[in-house]
Amino acid sequence: MATIDHLGIAVNSIAAARGFYEALGLSVVQQEEIPDEGVRIAVIPVGESRIDLLEPTSRDSPVGRFLAERGEGLHHLALHVDDISGTMESLRARGVQLLSDDLLIGSRGGLSFFIHPSSAGGVLVEIRQDSIADV
Amino acid sequence: MATIDHLGIAVNSIAAARGFYEALGLSVVQQEEIPDEGVRIAVIPVGESRIDLLEPTSRDSPVGRFLAERGEGLHHLALHVDDISGTMESLRARGVQLLSDDLLIGSRGGLSFFIHPSSAGGVLVEIRQDSIADV
Repeated sequence: MATIDHLGIAVNSIAAARGFYEALGLSVVQQEEIPDEGVRIAVIPVGESRIDLLEPTSRDSPVGRFLAERGEGLHHLALHVDDISGTMESLRARGVQLLSDDLLIGSRGGLSFFIHPSSAGGVLVEIRQDSIADV
Repeated sequence: MATIDHLGIAVNSIAAARGFYEALGLSVVQQEEIPDEGVRIAVIPVGESRIDLLEPTSRDSPVGRFLAERGEGLHHLALHVDDISGTMESLRARGVQLLSDDLLIGSRGGLSFFIHPSSAGGVLVEIRQDSIADV
């Protein structure tokens, strides 16, 4: 059954944004930079989910362009599923518009794909499965 | 410790939006209309959280105006806390801008207040505690 894996929130500055979450008793447990995507990520666990603060390291990156066009706010919602291939088929059968035809392999060996916001209430949704070994 | 209570997603039509979530194996377990707020809500449990699809029943309502200005998308993120009064004090002490000075009492006896998006990475955040009896 699906759960909320994480919310990716685009921010101008992790240093400025993290204080709000810390005042709620939450903590940044990890920071990582992904040079290929021009983004720095601060990971904040929240119950079974997490909030990822996404700060661009260049203006010409997906998150940099998002901020320039729309300002700070939710960048994407990631849902965790157990059977990502079956989920992809089920969505296609319903006519849901996907952003790619193939599964993407993430940095930790997880698999994911993205739904077009027009098929998901205006929200960019990522569907994830943790490990390739689960396929 | 805080958890994600729900995501409120503004949609033009619950009937059109729910199919995407149903294709993920999720279900609308409840629909309710809140005439005072001009909104119809479809509740979709997702793990320990839920997604609320928010469809306006009039254009001159908070969600109706949100859709007219920004289109479909995340309307608010609600976080559940155990001690809402302590959380409010802690946020004020950090200079976080709240949308009201008082706690609001919701339809099910829960308490809540809202954070200004400028203090929370561009996201309208609701802080909630389930029952007044917990205060």
